[in-house]
Amino acid sequence: MDVISQLSQVLSERQSAAADSSYVAGLYAAGLNKILEKVGEEATEVILASRDLAQGSQPDNITPTATSTTTTALESALVGEVADLWFHSMVMLTHQGVAPQKVLDELARRFGVSGIEEKRSR
Amino acid sequence: MDVISQLSQVLSERQSAAADSSYVAGLYAAGLNKILEKVGEEATEVILASRDLAQGSQPDNITPTATSTTTTALESALVGEVADLWFHSMVMLTHQGVAPQKVLDELARRFGVSGIEEKRSR
Amino acid sequence: MDVISQLSQVLSERQSAAADSSYVAGLYAAGLNKILEKVGEEATEVILASRDLAQGSQPDNITPTATSTTTTALESALVGEVADLWFHSMVMLTHQGVAPQKVLDELARRFGVSGIEEKRSR
Amino acid sequence: MDVISQLSQVLSERQSAAADSSYVAGLYAAGLNKILEKVGEEATEVILASRDLAQGSQPDNITPTATSTTTTALESALVGEVADLWFHSMVMLTHQGVAPQKVLDELARRFGVSGIEEKRSR
Repeated sequence: MDVISQLSQVLSERQSAAADSSYVAGLYAAGLNKILEKVGEEATEVILASRDLAQGSQPDNITPTATSTTTTALESALVGEVADLWFHSMVMLTHQGVAPQKVLDELARRFGVSGIEEKRSR
Repeated sequence: MDVISQLSQVLSERQSAAADSSYVAGLYAAGLNKILEKVGEEATEVILASRDLAQGSQPDNITPTATSTTTTALESALVGEVADLWFHSMVMLTHQGVAPQKVLDELARRFGVSGIEEKRSR
Repeated sequence: MDVISQLSQVLSERQSAAADSSYVAGLYAAGLNKILEKVGEEATEVILASRDLAQGSQPDNITPTATSTTTTALESALVGEVADLWFHSMVMLTHQGVAPQKVLDELARRFGVSGIEEKRSR
Repeated sequence: MDVISQLSQVLSERQSAAADSSYVAGLYAAGLNKILEKVGEEATEVILASRDLAQGSQPDNITPTATSTTTTALESALVGEVADLWFHSMVMLTHQGVAPQKVLDELARRFGVSGIEEKRSR
């Protein structure tokens, strides 16, 4: 199974867990608005981390998301923010009863890549 | 290959294409700010489509993103918006020279799912 | 009357106008989701224009919002984006039947400045 | 003086204060990215609070921003979120050395309202 499918399964299992048992269970208990706030926050952080990487170094009044301004650190920070954004999108979909795999199916359908068929043939 | 890897390859190939040859080539030519505007827009549309689905039906003054308010149409609209958000994140990463696969690797690393290893073993 | 109060009156009057008579009348007719999409878009543009100004000049792959990269042009672009953000917030409030003046009253209340009293004494 | 001008003066004074002396002084010390994160967060909260008010009541899985779902509470919550958005926009402008009054001047210029002239004649 691919990463998205495995992570979907984890997110689905945590729906029946106690609110204080994990970060994700806490998000489900807090409700849809709280989850959507996180989606919005992470989108903003993706935008800022992307600009941090593009600039490479920053003027003194910008504190980059990364702990150093080497390209490697800025790139890792950006990857981490996109992971956060996708992750919270998946939490939101699971909370709404929609399988995250449908997003991959939709991307496969749009771009004529063989996602759906390939999955079926496995 | 999974959907994200295949789509990454498509996005990478379009970097050397003429600006007017495709939507993605046009985005690359327009530059990072334009791509980041799209990331921000799609995040907002995910939030609205998620609320549309949660409500099921809307008061008259809210025009839902979907063309009808059946659960199926609202769910499809939400899946489409998340696909848009992930897609434009991938365009941004490719434009910055970062492989989108790194996002999946980061998600696999965080959640202890076997993404990286599984990929290597195929 | 201050700018916000005058603009509120304009926005209120346009609620009874035909959808094709002005940009604002078109937004009201398009409904709340379309107005909220604009709020989200403008917030993203404020963030990007703020980073454009902070950097002063950009690497080749960032096309700044402003038409030139002089500080004056970047500053004007930022002011314009914040004006867009506040303006669309006011359109949204008016569409919901909430007077934008209440936002100023709330700011006055929080910061102990004399907004409300000053207004009453005029 | 109007509320925005008075608040601008407060924000300007806090630029020379110690980072731990107030919330605003802490934001200045944290730097531009942190301030822009707040702008993005507040924009998302405006969008959610606006939908909360439009729906009036929510399905069980949406926890509204307001502490009750009376129209009055939902309206106050929305006004508070817009105040937060405008406030953090002003903090960002002040941090960048741009007077928030310029936003009002720009709104006055665009809509032909007498903001600039009125201010001059005072």
